Amino acid sequence: MVISAIQVLDRRFDLPNGSGSDATHTNPQYAYAVCVLKTDTSLEGIGLAFTLGAGTELVCQAIQFLSEKLVGQEIEALMANFGTTYRSLVDSPSYRWLGPHKGVVHLALAAIVNACYDLWAKSRQVPLWKLLLDLSPEELVNTLDLSYLEDELTREQAIQLLTEQYKTRENRNSVLTTGYKGYDTSVGWFNFSDELIVEKTKQALDKGFTALKLKVGSDDPLRDLRRATLIRQTAGEAATIMLDANQKWNVPQALDICRRLGSINPYWIEEPTHPDDVFGHQAIARAIAPFKVATGEHIPNKVIFKNFLQAKAMDFCQVDAVRVGGISEFLTISLLAKKFNIPVLPHVGDMGQIHQHLVLFNHIGMGHENLFLEHIPHLRSYFVHPANIVEGYYQVPQEAGSSSDLKP
Amino acid sequence: MVISAIQVLDRRFDLPNGSGSDATHTNPQYAYAVCVLKTDTSLEGIGLAFTLGAGTELVCQAIQFLSEKLVGQEIEALMANFGTTYRSLVDSPSYRWLGPHKGVVHLALAAIVNACYDLWAKSRQVPLWKLLLDLSPEELVNTLDLSYLEDELTREQAIQLLTEQYKTRENRNSVLTTGYKGYDTSVGWFNFSDELIVEKTKQALDKGFTALKLKVGSDDPLRDLRRATLIRQTAGEAATIMLDANQKWNVPQALDICRRLGSINPYWIEEPTHPDDVFGHQAIARAIAPFKVATGEHIPNKVIFKNFLQAKAMDFCQVDAVRVGGISEFLTISLLAKKFNIPVLPHVGDMGQIHQHLVLFNHIGMGHENLFLEHIPHLRSYFVHPANIVEGYYQVPQEAGSSSDLKP
Repeated sequence: MVISAIQVLDRRFDLPNGSGSDATHTNPQYAYAVCVLKTDTSLEGIGLAFTLGAGTELVCQAIQFLSEKLVGQEIEALMANFGTTYRSLVDSPSYRWLGPHKGVVHLALAAIVNACYDLWAKSRQVPLWKLLLDLSPEELVNTLDLSYLEDELTREQAIQLLTEQYKTRENRNSVLTTGYKGYDTSVGWFNFSDELIVEKTKQALDKGFTALKLKVGSDDPLRDLRRATLIRQTAGEAATIMLDANQKWNVPQALDICRRLGSINPYWIEEPTHPDDVFGHQAIARAIAPFKVATGEHIPNKVIFKNFLQAKAMDFCQVDAVRVGGISEFLTISLLAKKFNIPVLPHVGDMGQIHQHLVLFNHIGMGHENLFLEHIPHLRSYFVHPANIVEGYYQVPQEAGSSSDLKP
Repeated sequence: MVISAIQVLDRRFDLPNGSGSDATHTNPQYAYAVCVLKTDTSLEGIGLAFTLGAGTELVCQAIQFLSEKLVGQEIEALMANFGTTYRSLVDSPSYRWLGPHKGVVHLALAAIVNACYDLWAKSRQVPLWKLLLDLSPEELVNTLDLSYLEDELTREQAIQLLTEQYKTRENRNSVLTTGYKGYDTSVGWFNFSDELIVEKTKQALDKGFTALKLKVGSDDPLRDLRRATLIRQTAGEAATIMLDANQKWNVPQALDICRRLGSINPYWIEEPTHPDDVFGHQAIARAIAPFKVATGEHIPNKVIFKNFLQAKAMDFCQVDAVRVGGISEFLTISLLAKKFNIPVLPHVGDMGQIHQHLVLFNHIGMGHENLFLEHIPHLRSYFVHPANIVEGYYQVPQEAGSSSDLKP
């Protein structure tokens, strides 16, 4: 199967009133820059990068530029040594200058890389999670670019880590029967009224969710405290409640407010400050323990993840495969996190479509803990095969590919 | 003087054979994404962001989008509280998602911000360095955005730092007579033959330069060693020689090769590994002391600079005002570096045009050490007022503005 042409799509989706809002992105439009790999068959590889509306056209243009060299390549040959292709893409000299490995050009890479894995899985007629589980450790590592990680994770160490974990894979296959637990982010958007939060929380509990997220980061911390108390009272003491500040606070503010929010016994505080601030997160993590710090949705690449892990500045790694350099860099960062014994709980710019596959592989293949995956329902109607959540659990996808196909 | 319209230009410049080449960017084209602020007078504010050819069009589009809100603003009113405008620009929600504060959209911000300072200086009919020296500490800090730095540098601390330094400014005015020493990067580009390096080194010495830079990062470290030895032998023991690997090595490689390159007594090793790698640079700096580590040309924003400074991971801070958020963020990072007692020796994506002003202010106004400023001559003929180097010293520019005007 040969890639015959590239198509790039700029897809934007308006959201229901107040949905998607957080302290920093107060009135978002959800959008995807989409890379479509056409082939000499009827199959197409679809790759997504998640954006917030304006600017998606920049990512689309970067996809067009960077993806050209894929035309004419046979998919099995391409993926047999995809790490090398990945590195040649990220090191495209003039575009590398615009990063490196961050911002618009790296989002474009995410879409391209995701399209390659999607096409690979479709060509083998298996869902992405199964494609990944079918690869040997060497074959999997061949799809990764471990450059700049050699001080922490060499190719040999990555293969050894997987080889060790593959010995006990059978013990973790039960997740293929139970499905993977989800948590609901859509109960507590920033612009929601108190009444709506209560209503949505009750609905989520009725649907079987036991873990919920609330957006904080209000100009008045008392608003955060009031809403956090409200969701705790509504959901009960047994519920798992996460708080998400979306980068709103500086470090002194975060230290102050996180301590006060501890009163509702949160499971984690997410993005308490600027996503680049390794030492800021480290200081906050130390100060608010035993409450945990989660971050990663805006960390652009493996090198900065390496720094966060080295500094013990994140308790949960929220890498997002539609932000970093696609599934390849997601897996690289997951390996790194495994080495540091930090759980990977992805942010789902893809609405969980791709990540429902990746957490299955991370658990079975890599030995990551079976925790829960974010669920955001707002784009369900736009996907050909939307994630199927039953009683709060993502059901294991059976369709070939990465579940990224969008309706026209 | 009111900003009446925005014009955006995509300017690209081919270089003489081999010039500009480094281990990572092997065949560069130099380019500027240019923001032009038209006014109700004949004056125009010109702001540059430096790029390497392909992709400049993305930065140009981002300039167009982000700069719209400047139209209709009066320049003195705008700059009286520019820090607020800066923050509203960097936090433009959909564009913020594409970074935040890095990559294409942040390069666009650089061009916009630089155009504002350029217009401000022109409107007051003074060169940029004088404009900055004429501001009170409060007025200067009002043009900055110190958000996310509060754990290290508050507004009050920034004003106090400047107030203290202003007391001893007179002692440092002598630089306005001597000019500011330059160093020559154009002797040792990566693709230059050994013969050409010897020839260019001799020419630079004849022109009065005593500090020179050589590109390293060859696939074969012996090539680096041979060339480094050659330039040392040609320039003599008294010359200051800097080595620049342009991010080519991983950390173990850097540790090995930097130790061997110590044999030529380099003044610094520049960008020994990935520019995001705080702990990588920290490990290298500790290992190669007393040789120094310089980095910063690819560090996108103040938060990552803060982390590098906190970790003592850079001995020299090479912030570039055409990479970070323009002159405003350059000054912010210079204040932060001053607090940590780290010298600022800018990378000159602007070919030194803007930075010749900024190092004068950094020395006189901020008390930074009077060291030397990079000089790259290849775009001289394109500037209306190219930097004037006499006997190895940048002569103090007298024309109003930031010396950013390009010939049509």
